[in-house]
Amino acid sequence: MIRLTTTSPTFAADFTALVNARREADADVARDVRAIIARVRDEGDAALADYTQRFDRHDLNATGWQIDPADWRAAYEALDPALRDALDLAAQRIATYHEKQRPVGSDTTDANGIRTGARWNAIQNAGIYIPGGRAAYPSSVLMNAIPAKVAGVDRVVMVTPTPDGEINPLVLAAAHIAGVDELWRIGGAQAIAALAYGTDRIAPVDVITGPGNAWVAEAKRQLYGVVGIDMVAGPSEIVVLADGQNRADWIAADLLSQSEHDPTSQSILITDDAAFADAVAAEVDAQIDTLATAKVARAAWDANGAIIVTASLADAISLIDRLAAEHLELACDDPQALFDQIRHAGSVFMGRHTPEAIGDYVAGPNHVLPTGRRARFASGLSVLDFMKRTSFLQLGPQGLAAIGPAAVALAEAEGLPAHARSVALRLN
Amino acid sequence: MIRLTTTSPTFAADFTALVNARREADADVARDVRAIIARVRDEGDAALADYTQRFDRHDLNATGWQIDPADWRAAYEALDPALRDALDLAAQRIATYHEKQRPVGSDTTDANGIRTGARWNAIQNAGIYIPGGRAAYPSSVLMNAIPAKVAGVDRVVMVTPTPDGEINPLVLAAAHIAGVDELWRIGGAQAIAALAYGTDRIAPVDVITGPGNAWVAEAKRQLYGVVGIDMVAGPSEIVVLADGQNRADWIAADLLSQSEHDPTSQSILITDDAAFADAVAAEVDAQIDTLATAKVARAAWDANGAIIVTASLADAISLIDRLAAEHLELACDDPQALFDQIRHAGSVFMGRHTPEAIGDYVAGPNHVLPTGRRARFASGLSVLDFMKRTSFLQLGPQGLAAIGPAAVALAEAEGLPAHARSVALRLN
Repeated sequence: MIRLTTTSPTFAADFTALVNARREADADVARDVRAIIARVRDEGDAALADYTQRFDRHDLNATGWQIDPADWRAAYEALDPALRDALDLAAQRIATYHEKQRPVGSDTTDANGIRTGARWNAIQNAGIYIPGGRAAYPSSVLMNAIPAKVAGVDRVVMVTPTPDGEINPLVLAAAHIAGVDELWRIGGAQAIAALAYGTDRIAPVDVITGPGNAWVAEAKRQLYGVVGIDMVAGPSEIVVLADGQNRADWIAADLLSQSEHDPTSQSILITDDAAFADAVAAEVDAQIDTLATAKVARAAWDANGAIIVTASLADAISLIDRLAAEHLELACDDPQALFDQIRHAGSVFMGRHTPEAIGDYVAGPNHVLPTGRRARFASGLSVLDFMKRTSFLQLGPQGLAAIGPAAVALAEAEGLPAHARSVALRLN
Repeated sequence: MIRLTTTSPTFAADFTALVNARREADADVARDVRAIIARVRDEGDAALADYTQRFDRHDLNATGWQIDPADWRAAYEALDPALRDALDLAAQRIATYHEKQRPVGSDTTDANGIRTGARWNAIQNAGIYIPGGRAAYPSSVLMNAIPAKVAGVDRVVMVTPTPDGEINPLVLAAAHIAGVDELWRIGGAQAIAALAYGTDRIAPVDVITGPGNAWVAEAKRQLYGVVGIDMVAGPSEIVVLADGQNRADWIAADLLSQSEHDPTSQSILITDDAAFADAVAAEVDAQIDTLATAKVARAAWDANGAIIVTASLADAISLIDRLAAEHLELACDDPQALFDQIRHAGSVFMGRHTPEAIGDYVAGPNHVLPTGRRARFASGLSVLDFMKRTSFLQLGPQGLAAIGPAAVALAEAEGLPAHARSVALRLN
């Protein structure tokens, strides 16, 4: 953890270093991923079976390529009732929030009878990647599949690796609730390649979303353009802006909720109260060893944690915009006044009773968010990622007479005579 | 040009080959582009000056790195009045169309006082790539810069190569009209790298849009994630659906307006009238040699042109969706009835008096559109490409009591104890 104070003579340089620090894994995975994609494209299912044997230690032809919807339902019905209710509540709130994102088209006709507009349609096939292994993330199933279903996607295909053939029942239950259509036992870059190009068994998709490790993220990046993707994902981060009136143990828990994800995660506290900064640092140290995730949280906090002391909350605004964080908590009395002045953040959690974790699960907004300063230009996952817009145009003779001559003039000036002729012929 | 008939026994295979044909340049530009990007990132302006000397044959330190806004205005004022009026009309109609795309946020509070919403903001810095050289595309300046300005982007940075130091005055005039903020004399992959990473002279941008050759397109693809980009662009295409009641010379001109762009362009006629197909083929041959662009148009039509004869217009719908074309003309009496059944197209031009070229220039909708079947998942350039959405959430004690326990249950099930604790502490 580093500690910075805005009054320090080295603050500007220290803060720039913090903003620019790369937390991506250093391993050059691009070449490995290129080879995996090429082989899946050439060999299809045989390559998938081979990679699955190698990385996940089971034979797809023995364990089965797909998991049947009846098994998802059985997993859902066997859940502890409190957990089942929690999943149901999350699914319902996520659906309600995302239904407000359905875009509205346009259709306008002007005085010359020139009709212009735009129509939105859902994509047909979406692929959802869900990490497997020891950790199970049913919340990611809901956050990816529900927006696709709200958009009106015909076919939602979930892929997830099942190391040693095992899968967490919570993930199956979430697939059942979210309305997934197919579930394949494949993971890694090879699963992304199979979704993009299709194989004999698996029909290709149009868009791929969902979290994954560095290989999965790189495969999505390389296949962007063959399919649509949600975003280029990097390590997760949180910025907590807190005045001295907060409870240090609450804020420490918020910082650790980010640190426990991954050793590359980053948690940053910005406060205008140096004594509160000391109290939070002490609380982090006190809480961290009590966590089952202590090892990861400690590594992340030591390597990437930061506490920044400013002269005022207002002084924090420009720092917050430069960090353009995935998650931003505003733990103060009038968070709206600060939010009004902030331009770049993936998702904002306002007030003292809005820990970021509530947004990870049940509040409704999506937890798939831009990382690594990409909130400067990118948005969280939404219904729009599963839809596309077709513009349209309709002219009659009167409309063409009104604007056609300008098109002819510009086409001739650009040296495109067939463009000009296609309009001019209809003007005569 | 190939000719297919749906009643042929080989039609299914022939049509699939047409859909899957790759028209991308075969040259492996990815490695060259990686090297150019790395050098610009390391050496900055010195690399830009060197590449410009090598590829555009002029010394930036002598000709000047930027072109001054006063020169844009002078170029605008010196234009032929008819051309100036045409550019002004185009700019005004493009602005009007794109203003309808401004997204609306949301802000809702439920009975438990749980507030959820989303707020849209413009990005701060946009980079616009405009090809240079003999051809001048002022329309591309308008189509890229105006949506950025409508979105509210603070700084629109245009880059364009000026081979031998020369630039077309129409492009300068368009920069003046469109409200561009800076104009730099650089092009190619090196210009994209400079915009993404910044140099001593050029401040970096957040999003890069605009057309370019294979090197420019590959540079944008490689830098996606460092910046936002509009799309992965490929060769342009048109599908014209026309019944036998059309004039063959009009439809031939429409097909040629696509073919004249580039040897990789594709024009496809689908008709339910075999005699009309013959007439259009003859008209294409008659018109093609009269074009100043004959050489390019002939190469594109010979290599990539296609005429498909179907038994009915309705039979064309599934073919149109599989082609998912950038441009689609519906030249028939009731185009709306067909449009209602079509799912995948970048932009649709309805009726007999709506040649695609009218949309390239003055109608209003954007001419930057998804190519190469990407209309299955992608949309044309819009105001949304220059904005991003921040979701937000605000709970009080009552709201947290209502949904917090579900978040605790899910966090514990996912093995994330600090997540659970950050909520549980606030529940006690």
